[in-house]
Parts: sequence; C-alpha cells; structure tokens
Amino acid sequence: MTTITDVTVHDVRFPTAASGDGSDAINRGDYSATYVELSTDDGPTGAGFTFTNGRGNEITCAAVRALQHHLVARTVEEIAAEPVAFWRTLVADVQLRWLGPEKGVIHMATGALVNAVWDLRAKLAGQPMWRYLAELPTDELVASVDFRHITDALTADEAAAILDKGRDGLAGRLALLERDGFPSYTTSVGWLGYPDDKVRALTRAAYTDGWRAMKMKVGGPPADDLRRARIIRDEIGPDALLMMDANQVWDVDEAITNMTALAEVDPYWIEEPTHADDVLGHARIARAVTELTGGRCRVATGEVAANKVIFKQLLQAEAIGVMQIDACRVGGVDEVLAELLLAAKFGVPVCPHAGGVGLCEYVQHLAVFDFLRVGTSLTGRMVEYVDHLHEHFVDPVRTRGGRYLLPTAPGYSATMRPESIATYRFPDGPAWR
Amino acid sequence: MTTITDVTVHDVRFPTAASGDGSDAINRGDYSATYVELSTDDGPTGAGFTFTNGRGNEITCAAVRALQHHLVARTVEEIAAEPVAFWRTLVADVQLRWLGPEKGVIHMATGALVNAVWDLRAKLAGQPMWRYLAELPTDELVASVDFRHITDALTADEAAAILDKGRDGLAGRLALLERDGFPSYTTSVGWLGYPDDKVRALTRAAYTDGWRAMKMKVGGPPADDLRRARIIRDEIGPDALLMMDANQVWDVDEAITNMTALAEVDPYWIEEPTHADDVLGHARIARAVTELTGGRCRVATGEVAANKVIFKQLLQAEAIGVMQIDACRVGGVDEVLAELLLAAKFGVPVCPHAGGVGLCEYVQHLAVFDFLRVGTSLTGRMVEYVDHLHEHFVDPVRTRGGRYLLPTAPGYSATMRPESIATYRFPDGPAWR
Repeated sequence: MTTITDVTVHDVRFPTAASGDGSDAINRGDYSATYVELSTDDGPTGAGFTFTNGRGNEITCAAVRALQHHLVARTVEEIAAEPVAFWRTLVADVQLRWLGPEKGVIHMATGALVNAVWDLRAKLAGQPMWRYLAELPTDELVASVDFRHITDALTADEAAAILDKGRDGLAGRLALLERDGFPSYTTSVGWLGYPDDKVRALTRAAYTDGWRAMKMKVGGPPADDLRRARIIRDEIGPDALLMMDANQVWDVDEAITNMTALAEVDPYWIEEPTHADDVLGHARIARAVTELTGGRCRVATGEVAANKVIFKQLLQAEAIGVMQIDACRVGGVDEVLAELLLAAKFGVPVCPHAGGVGLCEYVQHLAVFDFLRVGTSLTGRMVEYVDHLHEHFVDPVRTRGGRYLLPTAPGYSATMRPESIATYRFPDGPAWR
Repeated sequence: MTTITDVTVHDVRFPTAASGDGSDAINRGDYSATYVELSTDDGPTGAGFTFTNGRGNEITCAAVRALQHHLVARTVEEIAAEPVAFWRTLVADVQLRWLGPEKGVIHMATGALVNAVWDLRAKLAGQPMWRYLAELPTDELVASVDFRHITDALTADEAAAILDKGRDGLAGRLALLERDGFPSYTTSVGWLGYPDDKVRALTRAAYTDGWRAMKMKVGGPPADDLRRARIIRDEIGPDALLMMDANQVWDVDEAITNMTALAEVDPYWIEEPTHADDVLGHARIARAVTELTGGRCRVATGEVAANKVIFKQLLQAEAIGVMQIDACRVGGVDEVLAELLLAAKFGVPVCPHAGGVGLCEYVQHLAVFDFLRVGTSLTGRMVEYVDHLHEHFVDPVRTRGGRYLLPTAPGYSATMRPESIATYRFPDGPAWR
C-alpha cells in the first residue's frame, strides 16, 4: 500500500509574454503551472499541474490548497479501487462545488490533483501513462468514469462495449506508433504577435522539418488574417493542412462572415470561432461552414470547454467536427476518459489541445491511449505541438518529422525538473526576483 | 470627480452549516461573502460582494486581489462613461481570462468588483440602485451592455427599443410597488436537512405570515421528496404555489422520471433538474414536463449559470420558463442588465435567485428595475426570499405579507455592518477563533 503523505503546490511561471510567444486574439501570458507534488510514504512522487497564463496562478494554487486535504492520508490503492467516489470528494465537495460547479479555477485545481494521482499510479506500475491506461481491464476503465449527467448520451454499457472492441487489433496499432510516432500539427508558425516575415520563415522551416499541418491565429482585422493565411498557404502548397484559431473573439454571425472570406485558403478547421460556452452558436457556425466549403472545413473547440457536460452537448448538437480536449482544464484523466468515450460514441476525432507549458507532455499519452483503445483510428487525429518550454520537464516530448515519438518513462511525463521549479517559482525564484 | 483610491477585500463567513440551514442535495455550507470595499478620495465607500459557501472563500478573495488593480486610481465618472471598456479590463484581462473564461471563481470576483462600482454610483447619485437604474437614459443603459457574443439573440437596437418602451407607464408601476411591495416566495420551509415536522411547522407559519409561494428542495430519495411535497401541499392548499429545486443532482432521463411522480402535487416549477451547464438537457426536460403537466409546470434555472452566453442559449433552446439570475455569480450589474434584456426579448419572466448571504439585498433592486423598465409585468415574477443573515447589513431587506418593500437607502444595499465584518472575518474574527 502506498499512502499519500503530503501535497505540495508550487507557483511556477515562465516569462513568455514579452516575446509574443503564445499571443492570440485574447491571450498574452506568462505560461505558468500550478504544479502539484504528492509525497508518499513509500515510492515515487506523483506530479500533476494545471496550466495558467501567468497572473492569477496564485488563485489556482489557492484552490489546490483548498482541495488537497481530500488526498492526504489516502492510499493510492483505495483511490484506484473507487475512483468515482474519490473524484466526487473533489468535484462535489459540499462547500467548494459552488465555486464552479465543475468549471474554472476550482475544476482546474481538481485536474492538477487528479492527474497527480494518475501519475503516481502509472509510476507505481512502472509504465508510461498511455500504456498503463491501454492495458487496464475494461471494467476498471469504466469504473473510473462518473456517468452522472451524461447517461443521456453514453451509458456504462456503451462505454464498456467501446473499450472491449478497442482490444481488437491493439498490438498492430501499437506497432504502427512504435514505427511512425503519432501525427501532430504545429502552432508555432502563426501567433498573432508575429510579423509577416517571421510567419513566412517559421512556416518554411516547419515544412522543411516535415510538418504537413499548421495552425495560425485569426481574429485580428479580417484583411490581416487573410494576408497571413495566404502567406502560409503559399509556403505549404495546396496539400498540407492549414488550421485557423479565432480564440473566441467573433460573434456567431461575424464568424460566418469571416469564414466566408477565409474559405479562399481552404482551411481544414476553424477553432473557437465564438464564445466557448456557446454550444448552439457553434452548431450554427458548423452548419454554415460545412455548407460554405462543401464539408472541407469543420469547427473545432475544446481548450476551454469546462467539463464533460459541455462536450456532451457539442457532440449532441453536431457543433464540432474535431474535439480538442485539454488535459488539465477538466477534472483529470477520469473526466478525459469520459470525453474520449463520448467522442468515440459520436464518431468525432479528438485532437487534444496542447502548447502552454507541459500540455504536450500530458496529451501525447491521451492521444496514444485513445488510438490504442478507444477511437482506434488515426484518421483526422493530430496532437497539437508547440515548441515551448519542454526543457523544463524530466521526460520531455520528443518529435521526429512532425510526429510525436512514444514516451517510455513511467508516469504521465508531468514531472518538472527541480532546478526549473527553483528558478521560475513565483515570486521568489531568481527569474522573477 | 470621485477617484477610487483603494480596494479592500474581507473574507467573511457565517457558521450556518451546523444548523442545516441552506442544505440541499449538493450544498451544505457556511454562507460567506467575499466582501469588497472601494475607498474613494471624496465621498462614500462602494460595497460589493460575491457569495460563496464557506471553504474556498479565500480563493474568490485571491481572485479579487488579482483583479483589483484595474479599479485603483480610476474615477467613477470615467468608468461610467465607458462601462464596456471597463468591464472588459476585468473579463478580458489577457492573463486572467484563461481562468474562466467568464465563469467560476474569476467571474464571481469580477461581479463583486463591478457591483461595488455600481453601489458607489448609486450612492453618489443619492438613490437606491433600482431607482438609479430605472432613471438612467436608454443610451446609458445600452452602453453598459457588452453585446459581444449575444448579438445573434439581442442587438443594441433591440435593447434600446425594450428600454424606451419601458418608460411607458413607469410611474404607475412604481406606485403599485410603493403600495404593495414586490411579490416573493420563501425557500425557508423545505431545506433537505429539515425533519418532516419542522417542514410542516415552517410551512404553516409561512402561510400564516402571508406567503403563497414556497419552494422545497428535492433530489433526495424519490419517496422522501414526494412525502415532504405532500406535507407542504397539504398545508398550503391547492391554490398556493409549490416550487421544487433539485440542485442538479438528476440526470436528464432521471429528472423526467422523477417529475412524472412529483407531478401529483402540482409543482409550479422544477429548478435545476440537471447539471447547470446542460442547455440541451434542460430543453429536453422542459418539453417533457410541459407535456406531462399540460404546461402547469415549467423548468427554472440560473443560480449557477455562469454568464450571459449560457442564459442566451437557455432562452434560444426554450429550455426555461423561469430565469433565475444570480446577482453576483455573473459579472455584476452590467451583465445582469444584458440578461434582463435577453429575458424580455424572449418573453421569459425573471425570478432572481436569492438566499445565501446578501443575495436578497442585491436582487430586490434588480427585480424592481426589471419591472419598472424592462419586463414591465408582475406576471410570474417573484423574488426568492430566505430568512437568513439580513441582520448583518446596514440596509437589510424588509418584507410584509410575503412581499419585499422598496429599499430607500442610496446604493445597492450591499453594505455590511462593520461589527459583523469584524466578528465573522475568517479566520481571525471572534466567531472563528
């Protein structure tokens, strides 16, 4: 038995705002982690985090502190035996639930803690998270999903059927990934803060490095968006994929108007075309964009979708053609599992949101598990890749020719290097003093 | 010119959990306020708060601290001249927005700050908030609404038309309220933590006091819910209204099943029948309940609806027959104004959520303003009333015979008594030491 003896939270911030890295229509931040370490009486340290954009990271840290007593003195084995009961101690805490419910700061903190427990489980099993999940028996995976509020879209029996079917051909899919890696796309070429010549140079370099799918930010003045889009399309030719991300700045009708103009450069998806909570708005935009492009362009969203109930509705309303789970905005692996199963039920590919700090490290595991056991297809599947801050992780992502290579170290790849924590801890680390 | 010189936030908590007051299917808390005071160089102190359920109030306090620099050294006049620009400094802060967006802790903190500014404005005008709002010119009211993300449902021109039309007959409506007060209902009779005999005694007392609309909590074992509902219906007779509140514990199909049984006692509404984010689920339940009861019962929700985009969709999907705005979960008066206008556009009555601590004090102003200038009808309008903690306010609500009397003191009735703050401040006040 391994007992969680203590929870430590670090406020770790990287000064990225000044360079324009990660800038888009609504965000310009210092990529930060609310970083959680679970000490145990016997065995490894569990690591988890949620990502924030700089200022305010102290708020998610405070939320972790408000929740952490639910973990201390629990054993990993008893949590693993009753995962929904454990999950509900966090998300249905009778006093803290009011602060969400299941959304924003309190849910992000929940995700950091839940993911740290899963990291610990995988480390204790001596397996990378993707393999640990892929080899779990169907009943244990199903038992990790809280079906409350989603049974109108997915039942436990349907989930079990998906996961059982996912065993077929698993070895072959794994061999494919071991040979080729997992497909990805890059968002490093077209941040809104970059000038045109930088966009062109980065696009050319990325294409040379093997990337055949690239995402640009839109949501600035429409003429600027189109000009930058033409630069990228010009560099990558007609066959590579060009995705666009509006980061929610448009109204519903404005999104439709702007996509009418941008359709010229044959976008593969439009991401966050309007407010993230607007399921019905996304559905209207999806119908319009499908009609406008003969189905060549689809709507994508998810990086700020708060929980599985939002994803359930996006699927029910046929509002998305691509589902972009964020590994640490939702309540950790248990909720991601629910979302992967929902996506499989509705036949929508999952392309996880990454970037920030550590998100690439997290989501590679989820995408691989999804392919091996849930979605079982690579069609339309790509993991976002952003070339930032990987050097701060003990087990950083590795890519080759625009593909993620399979992680091999035990755990969820969330463990940060102690010297990075010390240097970038806010406000007392040397980077901030 | 009045300059905001400083922002002070107090963590104030009242030990209500032990008594079962406020207990329902998912909440059992120590009613608390993240209480904000705006100091000015010249003139009154602005007061605002957001309500929380106890533990975690320090998190919303931290969020206020992260946002408060947006207010300091601003004048009330410049904020009033460009309210949307001010509102967006809070809700679209390029680093803090990620923590919501526009939901949960960060949005609740925004509401506390925005409401404190409005309190200051009304105090400077020497008017209670309802009168201050009702007398604002249409263009100033419209200029207070950020229409981003709602123009597909409500345009500025439509809002102006509603507000202009709201001038007609305003004096007559005001005279009516001055004579009779504003209709309300009580939630003090049927908390889930109360035994049957207490429910019966409280119901009888409330009926004697003039209440003709009462709300009970459901979401326990269905047989218990029905037994308690029968007690209340038995006490109040067939003509008084009985409302039910499930606080989100049911799944969509479960809600429909349970309402099929509870229809026997002729409920007037079912509140929060499922997860608050589930617009499509509420729409399905609304269709079922309407059919089940021949339209006598409707769906109500809103107390944890995070923002105007959620309310917009609830209206677009015909998911609600009653809209329950919470005055301080959303981003303050500006956003409430958007929501009242949306409700008027769609013809759905607003019955504000109250209870907790200070919510009754807040929402009486909103309901009165809504009647005077926006919704212009009392049909189906009632403000929730809970008989808790009013003694801690300088200008507490007053009721007579189940109706709110018009507040007369300048401001938003949000100012807490200094001795209450001192006594209940967490963790150092004598009530908590």
